[in-house]
Amino acid sequence: MQLSRRVAAEMFGTFWLVLGGCGSAVLAASLSGPEQGLGIGYAGVSLAFGLTVLTMAYTIGHISGCHLNPAVSVGLTVAGRFPARDLVPYIVAQVAGAILGAFALSLIACGKPGFDLVASGFATNGYDGRSPGHYSMLAAFICEVVMTGFFLFVILGATDRRAPAGFAPLAIGLCLTLIHLISIPVTNTSVNPARSTGPALFVGGGAVDQLWLFWLAPVLGAVVAGLVYPVVARERGATRSVEALN
Amino acid sequence: MQLSRRVAAEMFGTFWLVLGGCGSAVLAASLSGPEQGLGIGYAGVSLAFGLTVLTMAYTIGHISGCHLNPAVSVGLTVAGRFPARDLVPYIVAQVAGAILGAFALSLIACGKPGFDLVASGFATNGYDGRSPGHYSMLAAFICEVVMTGFFLFVILGATDRRAPAGFAPLAIGLCLTLIHLISIPVTNTSVNPARSTGPALFVGGGAVDQLWLFWLAPVLGAVVAGLVYPVVARERGATRSVEALN
Amino acid sequence: MQLSRRVAAEMFGTFWLVLGGCGSAVLAASLSGPEQGLGIGYAGVSLAFGLTVLTMAYTIGHISGCHLNPAVSVGLTVAGRFPARDLVPYIVAQVAGAILGAFALSLIACGKPGFDLVASGFATNGYDGRSPGHYSMLAAFICEVVMTGFFLFVILGATDRRAPAGFAPLAIGLCLTLIHLISIPVTNTSVNPARSTGPALFVGGGAVDQLWLFWLAPVLGAVVAGLVYPVVARERGATRSVEALN
Amino acid sequence: MQLSRRVAAEMFGTFWLVLGGCGSAVLAASLSGPEQGLGIGYAGVSLAFGLTVLTMAYTIGHISGCHLNPAVSVGLTVAGRFPARDLVPYIVAQVAGAILGAFALSLIACGKPGFDLVASGFATNGYDGRSPGHYSMLAAFICEVVMTGFFLFVILGATDRRAPAGFAPLAIGLCLTLIHLISIPVTNTSVNPARSTGPALFVGGGAVDQLWLFWLAPVLGAVVAGLVYPVVARERGATRSVEALN
Repeated sequence: MQLSRRVAAEMFGTFWLVLGGCGSAVLAASLSGPEQGLGIGYAGVSLAFGLTVLTMAYTIGHISGCHLNPAVSVGLTVAGRFPARDLVPYIVAQVAGAILGAFALSLIACGKPGFDLVASGFATNGYDGRSPGHYSMLAAFICEVVMTGFFLFVILGATDRRAPAGFAPLAIGLCLTLIHLISIPVTNTSVNPARSTGPALFVGGGAVDQLWLFWLAPVLGAVVAGLVYPVVARERGATRSVEALN
Repeated sequence: MQLSRRVAAEMFGTFWLVLGGCGSAVLAASLSGPEQGLGIGYAGVSLAFGLTVLTMAYTIGHISGCHLNPAVSVGLTVAGRFPARDLVPYIVAQVAGAILGAFALSLIACGKPGFDLVASGFATNGYDGRSPGHYSMLAAFICEVVMTGFFLFVILGATDRRAPAGFAPLAIGLCLTLIHLISIPVTNTSVNPARSTGPALFVGGGAVDQLWLFWLAPVLGAVVAGLVYPVVARERGATRSVEALN
Repeated sequence: MQLSRRVAAEMFGTFWLVLGGCGSAVLAASLSGPEQGLGIGYAGVSLAFGLTVLTMAYTIGHISGCHLNPAVSVGLTVAGRFPARDLVPYIVAQVAGAILGAFALSLIACGKPGFDLVASGFATNGYDGRSPGHYSMLAAFICEVVMTGFFLFVILGATDRRAPAGFAPLAIGLCLTLIHLISIPVTNTSVNPARSTGPALFVGGGAVDQLWLFWLAPVLGAVVAGLVYPVVARERGATRSVEALN
Repeated sequence: MQLSRRVAAEMFGTFWLVLGGCGSAVLAASLSGPEQGLGIGYAGVSLAFGLTVLTMAYTIGHISGCHLNPAVSVGLTVAGRFPARDLVPYIVAQVAGAILGAFALSLIACGKPGFDLVASGFATNGYDGRSPGHYSMLAAFICEVVMTGFFLFVILGATDRRAPAGFAPLAIGLCLTLIHLISIPVTNTSVNPARSTGPALFVGGGAVDQLWLFWLAPVLGAVVAGLVYPVVARERGATRSVEALN
């Protein structure tokens, strides 16, 4: 498949991840007035994030491999599953898709009378005063490293040639749901630098100042997983290519 | 398969979509008295809508392709996956099924002492004063276009010959769940003109006045996706036929 | 497979359906004290009922077909998928399993200080004063007929030879979840005479007086679906046998 | 596959089970302040526990069989599916992984200002005063025996050679979700001695005093299921080997 098509698919997919995941958080997590008590809460947001990946993996997995996440692209490169020469175009497309997704979300969200984008938080990630539960920078860093590490571990394992075919999108999407069920209170859950960057650019200020952690920690976790999985699994280059992620 | 059987299946399926999806909203989303706090909320309604499609896709996918939605039939036609000559019979069957589903729901709902169908909203879609969160007409329009566009994108991708077989109903059903997790507060979520029409006819008034948006926006989104997917995916007529949606 | 093994599997499975489904309702739906707000609500109970069937269908589907429900056995017989001579042993095993499951649940539930089995309702089904939302007998009857009818429709379709293999337990289990998401407020959801009978025998009084509806309506719905599906689907005896439900 | 790799995989997987399952309970179940009402509750925790097993089963099922649970390893040995000589290394790895998972969780949880690990309960299992709903020791014992028994029954059935291939991780993971939906109020749900041991060592006191029950009851339930399943299913050594759990 040509790089241009794969890059377009990554942009579409990351747009959907941010619009769907962050959108469920901004539009539907917590409601007031007659809708009070009907909001989907953190459990609903967790499900939404996972389903953006699950649905896109079945939709564009056969086009681009459906990474939707710079940390995933880096981790797959380290594990020898993705060519390093495609890394930059993929990451650029993912970040662009995330920014466009956040823009589309802002158009919808601002259609509600009285909506204040910055005050709402706009689903940005953060630590200390910007963490939903005011978790420290160190706790946030450990959490993002470990969660992204296991996310990559699951991606590498579920797309292993020896795993049952066709189920990888299910396992990977539901892994992202699981990660959110655990860690929304800690950092609002990133494990994805593109997903963090999109909304942060619309909020500015502290949201942008803290972005470094949501690039560094997920990529670090992904690199570790990319190094460890092949050793534990005794993988020898026989795994599926990225085009055959599904 | 004969058109009469396929049309009957579409009517059955859309009946189930409206009875199940709108039914969960009307009967179980918000409760009072000793049941207060037990209601399923928007997250439960989202799951219910998705499961109506998931269950029917495994049930009648091999009969009619399980569209259950005029926007889906239009989008598949634009993408070259569905014969234009069957479009009108399918859409008539879907709308008829939706009206019958809303009728069956009214029979059950009115068995509760004090139930007022019109005051309840009866799961109709709307914008401005009829939007759950009072979102503007423009925000509602953008939301319905984008959500339906991605819905069709997922349908086209997950039923692509290159996607893993058998998983399309799962991906498509859970995509509808995801769409509801995001957008119930905006429009009560349509992405389906038939689903909007059924309940609106029983409520009348503003619900019917606003129906135009829930025909125009979903169909527009579906047409765009039907044009874009084949280009991005380099599809050349080699995809599965509608009878083989699953 | 010998009838004795199949009957044992049905008893085990229906035990699990009642212990798991009714158990989640009795033990975890609504909590008080420091646990208030943590209960699983009707959405959690809906998921639990569906998962009892999903898990058992993958576990004993290859042994007994995993009916776990007299209405299912009757509907499959009417549709020509199940031998009439096995109907009585299956139904006896299902009812026995349901009673034993309710007994096991009572042992656990009564371990909570102050638990009053009769006052709790013990997850019995009912209409009028015994319906969670006080729905009328007629609404309850319509609801149980229609829900069981679609349940059988999904069972017949998802196990059709032309549906993708292996997914039937998923579709059928999640259909039961969907049915509960819609109808718990109406009748506490039966669609299964055995599931209704088990808990009712421990509560007695009105719960037993109303049992007739939860035998009559589900069986009626199942018979209609068993007659209609083969006609719509143009089925000609080529479907999978009951031993191959999965 | 070498024992060292399989044991490493079991340790990784059980780490994830405890970090993810107990982590969702400690970090996200119940929230306060501006987050009040957004917590995932027992339903979210149930989903998280199940998804740890579902994701790991697709990830390391082809390496170690993905037991992650001493009771599972014992039950599979009794059923003739797992070699007794590997039992001790597996159990040691599972307990070590659980302790490390609880340690990682403590690092994250203590990053929240004012978090008190012991007072929080740290997701330990218990009966009487340490049971969420103050259930008696006898009720807790019965509950853990029955739940673990059915868990093993599902594991043995879903990995049976005659069950559809590839779906076992789904059925087994969602069975663990179901078990939690039923029994969190009773014992905080163990069915896994390693999962109980990890957090208990960090809390000490009564949590450690009650650990015996969460070793004895799950193992007893697993042994019974390991004896019963082969008899009911007329299994004759033709089932899949542990390396082929998926």
